Formats: sequence, structure tokens, C-alpha cells
Amino acid sequence: MHRTQTRSVSVEAHRESVRRLLAPLRTPDRIERLPLLAALGQGLAADVVAPVDLPPFANSQMDGFAIRSVDVAGGGTELRVVAPIPAGAAPDNLAPGTAAPIMTGAMMPPGADAVVPIEQAVPDSFPYPGELATVTLPSAPTGNFVRAAGSDIRAGEPALAVGTFLGPGQLGLLAALGLTEVAVYRALRILLVTTGDEVVEPGSPLGPGKIYDSNATLLESSMRQAGLDVTRTGISTDRPEELAGLLRRHAPDADLIVTTGGVSKGAYEVVRQAMESQDVEFLGVAMQPGGPQGIGTFDGVPVLGFPGNPVSCLISFEMFLRPVLGELFGSPAPRPAVRARLAEALTSPRGKHQVRRGTLEPNGTVRLEGGAGSHLVSALAHSNALIHVPEGIAALAEGAEVEVWML
Amino acid sequence: MHRTQTRSVSVEAHRESVRRLLAPLRTPDRIERLPLLAALGQGLAADVVAPVDLPPFANSQMDGFAIRSVDVAGGGTELRVVAPIPAGAAPDNLAPGTAAPIMTGAMMPPGADAVVPIEQAVPDSFPYPGELATVTLPSAPTGNFVRAAGSDIRAGEPALAVGTFLGPGQLGLLAALGLTEVAVYRALRILLVTTGDEVVEPGSPLGPGKIYDSNATLLESSMRQAGLDVTRTGISTDRPEELAGLLRRHAPDADLIVTTGGVSKGAYEVVRQAMESQDVEFLGVAMQPGGPQGIGTFDGVPVLGFPGNPVSCLISFEMFLRPVLGELFGSPAPRPAVRARLAEALTSPRGKHQVRRGTLEPNGTVRLEGGAGSHLVSALAHSNALIHVPEGIAALAEGAEVEVWML
Repeated sequence: MHRTQTRSVSVEAHRESVRRLLAPLRTPDRIERLPLLAALGQGLAADVVAPVDLPPFANSQMDGFAIRSVDVAGGGTELRVVAPIPAGAAPDNLAPGTAAPIMTGAMMPPGADAVVPIEQAVPDSFPYPGELATVTLPSAPTGNFVRAAGSDIRAGEPALAVGTFLGPGQLGLLAALGLTEVAVYRALRILLVTTGDEVVEPGSPLGPGKIYDSNATLLESSMRQAGLDVTRTGISTDRPEELAGLLRRHAPDADLIVTTGGVSKGAYEVVRQAMESQDVEFLGVAMQPGGPQGIGTFDGVPVLGFPGNPVSCLISFEMFLRPVLGELFGSPAPRPAVRARLAEALTSPRGKHQVRRGTLEPNGTVRLEGGAGSHLVSALAHSNALIHVPEGIAALAEGAEVEVWML
Repeated sequence: MHRTQTRSVSVEAHRESVRRLLAPLRTPDRIERLPLLAALGQGLAADVVAPVDLPPFANSQMDGFAIRSVDVAGGGTELRVVAPIPAGAAPDNLAPGTAAPIMTGAMMPPGADAVVPIEQAVPDSFPYPGELATVTLPSAPTGNFVRAAGSDIRAGEPALAVGTFLGPGQLGLLAALGLTEVAVYRALRILLVTTGDEVVEPGSPLGPGKIYDSNATLLESSMRQAGLDVTRTGISTDRPEELAGLLRRHAPDADLIVTTGGVSKGAYEVVRQAMESQDVEFLGVAMQPGGPQGIGTFDGVPVLGFPGNPVSCLISFEMFLRPVLGELFGSPAPRPAVRARLAEALTSPRGKHQVRRGTLEPNGTVRLEGGAGSHLVSALAHSNALIHVPEGIAALAEGAEVEVWML
């Protein structure tokens, strides 16, 4: 029962390997056009250029009077009130010496170049349409409370770049530009296989030495949140021929295989054994937890072998698969990375990048949830952040600034 | 054409009004039990108590040898190697003077109270099962590299509280506890009505004075992300009787009506006019943008009237509806609130809570995207954060610390 020697690499080097493994999946035939709302949470597959100006025309920023600024140059000028301009109307030319009641968002009449807000007018209310009336207005410079055509974005300018994550704000811009469809990358099909003789499905009886499978739920929900199309095979035992058969059967329908467990240096490592004849390397990433990793191809299909502890699984997903998918396909969105101060001291293995779980407080401090142990799934469930302790650091004091990723 | 006088309230007071409006929707008949993965992104509707210990049994944190610590008290002790313990097995009692090869996660044999990692053993590899062998081990205290039963959470302890947002970590914990279903609040049914004679559907021709409707896309996608069940009626014109008819038709199937536009103090305010005989108040919230708001009931169904500019709509959703839903129903998750330093100075109307759009940089500074204008939807699409400038502040210098919400 020997223990295998493996290569050790940095977090960055392994992330680069994952990128190289998945980059060939970014092919033109993955691109599809979807209605805007169906594209929510996906990544933009082609640059979008603005087909129109935004705003499309000069319009009023306030309820007030559209005027020619030269007409009120002296201030305290009395102007004749003409027909009001509601939003959505195409107004007539504004005659010199007149003021047109104009509503927020309504088109500026040709000839007008400024708006005086109603609050600055005397009287400060609009006459009824048709009523003969005048209004006295202060001076207002050209452009006063006018939103110029194209002041948000001009026709022909880049609106959104390929690889942009499509959230509400981005889809809102596409709608504002009059677009109804958008090019996105079709979701990757993930084959998710959890392994281990000790692992049983939730809901079954729990014999001695057995634990419930939380990896499948942790990873499938993470992957679904990331917009991936997940197929689960159920739990594989630790018999290599069972796992190999299962992978051989399902691999042709997958873009990427993700396994959990069986990648370490121990005596019963089912994923290693099942992949012995395949082009898969098992290595150590200088990271805690989540160090043991597998990467390569199984029957030509990309494979990532995550370690078996639930926290290690989640951190493997967050450190490698999630950011690389975001980079290659524009989805999922990157985790917001923020700076925070540690609420308590911590230690870390100097040669490893440690990822701790914690809660970021509104005051900008972050406290640890549970210890470093990769089995602490209750502590994970009470965390809202991952705390990064880079390689080379053995201890951090209370108050030290750290990078945290918001979960 | 008079302008209506309205009450002015603070952001906090209006949020409290929204809470009072929606709290009656949190009724027991909204609670349903769903399989874990179907509950992703929803809010927990009942406390969950751990039915089992986690871990369920004492297990090894390392690949190594399970021992009785008294047997190695002197250090450099030679012990007879017995049958190995793979993960998932129910091990026999460990006889005094023996060491059992044990894999990470495997159950500690009765009698053993510590693990010596394989790296510290001489020799530092496991003998083949059945081979007669001894191993020399250093001393190890009781509990060394042992994960005690219940050290993550004990049976009977609260696991997750009612109102918890169910993301991957929370669902992973429920799976680890052996649960297959969870009680959540059924999604609210939202009737979303955008209004305005100036607004046309994306994809249609754009006449003079017209703009494309981005509010519907911004809000529907925000609401879908928040787990809500959205019905759109299409755009209503500015004829009050058309809007009132449309609301009367659809209200019976909605838990909440959300309108956009027509809530201000101007002359053509369709939502105000359509709701004249209903119990709806139109008021000014001391907030920029998003000040004009409507709140009440239409034919007994709760109504929120958001203003008509796209940025105002989104900010109304983020400031009022989103946090109140999270508080009442546990979903959506709160926006991560972080502290950041302004990359540039800004000014703000002293009497209002200003919400600017910006980009939080990895170095912890936040820069503004576009000006304060509520029509700047391209600037919004390039932002990842909302920047809060509380009421009472008229200017902030470069480098000032602000609260930002990550979008």
C-alpha cells in the first residue's frame, strides 16, 4: 500500500491549467441568441455596439418650462406660456419669447435650449392648457436641466463587451437600446460524480462509519447558480471499475466531468485508480483546504477531480472552476472581492494559500466561522465570505487587512 | 394643471411602510416543502434542528495510524500494524499495543483516541494488508488529528434559523444532516406594469419623443433573480382608465403590484390618476434618485409605485423591495455591504440620501460611473456597486469612506 508522490503547484498555476483545459470549449457553435430575459445570468458572446443614441433625443430632466436661454438672459423675464409638452410627444418649434411647460423625459422642442424647473417659476404651477398665461422666469444657461441626446451613450459606441456577465443592469441597457435578443454561450453540460464507500444519499439510513453526501448538493447548487447544466450519476462506490464504467457511459454527453473524493495520496483513491489509463494528472495544489486535485481528460472529455471533504469541494469550485468559467464565458459573475480587517488572529501553513470561512460584518471586519478543518459544513453554512491568506504567510494579527470574497 | 403637494419621508420610514405593507403576505399557507435543490435561492420558512451529530462519529483527519495515546506516551514506540480502516468501514476494537492504518474520514476504532499522520511514521508508508509489520511512532496526545463526533454541530442544536437564505452552503449542510426536503416560502406573484406614452417595446420602431422600455427588463430580471414570480402586462399608456382597467383585470392573481412611472408631482401622472379612488399614497422619499413613490393597495392588493426613470426603478427595488423581501421571507439574500474609499470627490443634496452607481476596485476604492442622473442606464450597466451618501451630507472628498452595496 504505497503512497503516490505527486507534483506540487501554486494556486495560480493550477488555475491556469484549468483555463487551458476549458478554453477549447469556447467554440463558435456554443453561441446562441436568446431573448433578453432568457439570457439573465449568462455571458455575452459578442460585442454589442449601440444602435441608437441614449437618450435618443434631448429631453427635460425636470418638470418645468422649456425656453430659449437668450430670452431669459436678464433674469426676471416674463414669457408667454404655450402648449405643454408631455413625455412621448413630438413638440412643435418653440417661438422666441415663449415658454413651453415640459414634463420630465419629454422631448425638448426645436429652438429651446434650456429648462427652468417649475419650482423657480412665478407662479410655480402650470396654467391649464388653452388658458392665456405668462410666467416669470430667472435666467438659465444653455443646457440647463437638459439631457443631451447621446449623453449616456452614442450610437456606434461600444455598449457591452464580449464576456460581460448579463445581470439586470446589462439587460436593461440592451432593452434601452431597443434590442430584444442577445448572443450568449450555451451552458456547459457538467457530469457530477461523488464517490466514496462512506458516502450515502440523504434520506437513507446511516450505518456506522457512513456520512451523508453533502458534496453533490453543495456542488450541484453552486453549478446551477453559475448557470451550468448539471447531470448527477449518484454516488459511486470505491470500486474503480464501477466508477470507470459509469464515466465511460456518461462522458459522451458531458462537456466537463467533475468528481469528488479519491484524489489524495492514500491507499483507497478510487478516482486515481479509475483514471489510471487516462490522461489525468493528480497533484498537490499549495492550498488549504483543497490541496489534492486531479486534472486531465477521460475518453477525451475534460475532467476535474476535486477532493472529498465538502469544504474542500466548495473551495475547489470557487478557486478554480468558477473564476475560469467567468473569464472564458462571462458567466458566472466574479465574486465581489473586498478588503476587510480580521476580527481575530489566525495562523496558516506558510507554504500554502489558506482559504478560511468567515462572516463579513457591516463595520468592515471579518470574523472566522469554525476552524480550518475541511469537514466543517455547519460553519460553512454560517459564513458569507471566503478569507484569503496568501502563500508565505504563517500568521496574521487581529486587525490585519485581508482579501475576502463574498459568497 | 396643479402640482400635488405630498408628504416627505425618510428612506428608513418608507422601508418600514413597505415592510408593513408586505408583512401580511407571510402566512402559513405560503409555506411549502421542496427537495433541497428546488429550494436553491429561497428562504427557510421554519427553524431546522440538527437530527444527527456532524461528524456523526469520531473520524481521522489524516491518512495515518489510529492508536491509543498511552501506547506511544514515551515516543519512538514500536507498535504492531493491524488491519487497515478505509473510509466507510465499521472498524473492530483496537487492541492495546497495535496501530491501525486509517484513511482520512474513516471511523476511529473503539479504543483508539489519537491519529499519528503517515508522514511522522517510520516507515512512512502503509504495509500491504495481511503483511506482518510493525511501525515506530512518535508520541501523540489524546484527540490528535481526530475529528470528534458532533464537533461541527450536535444533534438537537439549531442548524439553520427561519429566514435563512438557502444558498449552496446552507443546502450542503441540510444534505450533510441527511435531510432531503426543506420548508420554504412560496414565491410571491408580482404584477409588473410599466407606463408612459413615451415608452415603446424594444424591437418596435422608435418615433420622435419615444424611448425604449428598459424598466420592464431591469425590474423583471431583478425580480426573477430575487426568486419572484413575475407577470408583465406590457406597457400601459398614460390614459388612467386604461391602466385602471388593466390593474382591475390582473390584480386578483397578484400578491403585489409594481408600477413604474406616473407617480411624480407633474401634470400627467397616470399611476396617481388611475389610483385616485384607491387606498394609495403618493409621497416623496428623501432619496436621490427614486424620490417619488406610491404605496398602498389597489382593490386590496398591495401596490408599490416606482418612479419612471430606469435608474430610479432599480434603486427603488434595491432600497425597498429587495431588503424587505429578504427580511420577511429570507430571500433574496441581502446585498453584501462593504466599506470603500471614494476614488473621487462627490456632491450630494444635503436633505436626501443619495445613491450613486460605481465600480468597486480590488484595491478597496470605488469610482463613480456616470453622474447622478437617473436616466444613465449605460453607466448603470458598467457599475458593480451602489454608493450610499446618507442624508445630511452635501459633499465627500476623495478618499472618504462610504458604504457600498455590491450588485
